[in-house]
Amino acid sequence: MVVHQKIRLVACINAEILSTGRELLIGKTVNTNASWLASRLAGSGIDVTRITAVGDEIAEISAALSESLKRRPSIIIITGGLGPTYDDLTLDGVASALRIPLDLNSDALDQVEKKYRSLGLPLTGERIKMAFLPSGSQPIRNDLGTAPGVVMDWMGTLIFCLPGVPREMIAMYDSYVSKAIGACTPSFHEHSFVIKGIPESALAPLIEKWHKANRDIYIKSHPSGSESRPAIEIHLSAVHKEGIQDRDLAEAEESFRALLSELKIDTTDGGKRK
Amino acid sequence: MVVHQKIRLVACINAEILSTGRELLIGKTVNTNASWLASRLAGSGIDVTRITAVGDEIAEISAALSESLKRRPSIIIITGGLGPTYDDLTLDGVASALRIPLDLNSDALDQVEKKYRSLGLPLTGERIKMAFLPSGSQPIRNDLGTAPGVVMDWMGTLIFCLPGVPREMIAMYDSYVSKAIGACTPSFHEHSFVIKGIPESALAPLIEKWHKANRDIYIKSHPSGSESRPAIEIHLSAVHKEGIQDRDLAEAEESFRALLSELKIDTTDGGKRK
Repeated sequence: MVVHQKIRLVACINAEILSTGRELLIGKTVNTNASWLASRLAGSGIDVTRITAVGDEIAEISAALSESLKRRPSIIIITGGLGPTYDDLTLDGVASALRIPLDLNSDALDQVEKKYRSLGLPLTGERIKMAFLPSGSQPIRNDLGTAPGVVMDWMGTLIFCLPGVPREMIAMYDSYVSKAIGACTPSFHEHSFVIKGIPESALAPLIEKWHKANRDIYIKSHPSGSESRPAIEIHLSAVHKEGIQDRDLAEAEESFRALLSELKIDTTDGGKRK
Repeated sequence: MVVHQKIRLVACINAEILSTGRELLIGKTVNTNASWLASRLAGSGIDVTRITAVGDEIAEISAALSESLKRRPSIIIITGGLGPTYDDLTLDGVASALRIPLDLNSDALDQVEKKYRSLGLPLTGERIKMAFLPSGSQPIRNDLGTAPGVVMDWMGTLIFCLPGVPREMIAMYDSYVSKAIGACTPSFHEHSFVIKGIPESALAPLIEKWHKANRDIYIKSHPSGSESRPAIEIHLSAVHKEGIQDRDLAEAEESFRALLSELKIDTTDGGKRK
């Protein structure tokens, strides 16, 4: 049953996502930024190990970032709170966590100034605020908005601060972040299939048996339907496993179905063994 | 400009949400469970202070719960990982965090056994697994699925474990959790309006000024459009503030618009002051 002996685990790059914004904590906004980033990071072979959402408070942002840094992820991506308003406090939170000041960054100021000049607008205190970055960090150009992003290397962890507005965040990820982390070999593969007529509780021992024989592929069941009319999506995935190809996951489906038939689970009577 | 002098802060009940499931960390699933719960909790006058998502690993779940408990929230709601498969490990994670064993709970076993009996299915190891609960906790009946939920009071924090399947989670919240936390006076109010033609950076000083004069109402700007053709949603909200009514937030809009006209910001030229 071991179908992937050639596969070995390589040193894993992992990431955490920290989303800021009270709108997430009152359920006004669904955190699609986090799922978009998670999907893109996984697609680049990077294991996302935690997603955290906090409100627009310096202490909360600082605490969440400090805790995240203690877990020593390779990458932390923070979204939201870079704008001009009183509760855009992400960089204050970052500076607080790292115990460094915010400095007026001349590159960031140049980006902000050019953006407003093109709009025929003067630099005001609120606009200049967006150019105050954690000391030693660098701005990332915001092609679709005004607040620059931020990147810094903190003791081996790459910290990116991206805007909360989804289209600005996505553009900045695609134009900058994906390239900055591109050194990691892209290797994410996934494959799904549906088993009907067997409740998840009857599939559970098969899934576990298959899992024990195929540790390089993550197998997870997602029930839909009900236990009386079950339909279970079996989702196979492999993040950053050297040598895995899509066809391996298709073969893995075959091996799972073979196990299913070996164990003679009847797919028509709710999972009683014959 | 102080429009809500009658309002005073009352002792706040707060909650954290801990979502488990690798599908969240690879972006396969958007965490709508968390936003649904956040919206319902806010609607019950409960401040959600953090949302965390971790994978299906005992150590990760245990660590996230331990960290959450240290922050001493009134309520922790955990979703996902209660089912019969090998990676349904939420209760193992809870037991690990609290340093207590999992015991076979007779009420939970009764619920599971009845459910499978009604489906004509026997109790298997995987089905009985769902009745092993953290010692001293109680099961919550799952009307739409098979895995019972769990509730326990841990040193003053109410911990709820709910299924990850959205319809099961929602039904269990509505039938049980909302009643268990019903003692908290429901008092969430929100009100939104849109200001067009002024970029967020030009509104920022007004928002801050208004915020300083109205600390009981949370004001937050959500930009849509662009800085050149701006449309800013102003969202006013108050969670668990005694005495706030919807009409107070409508009045608050008027006071914000009055401030806008006082400061003579031209809404047609991109926020230059006259």
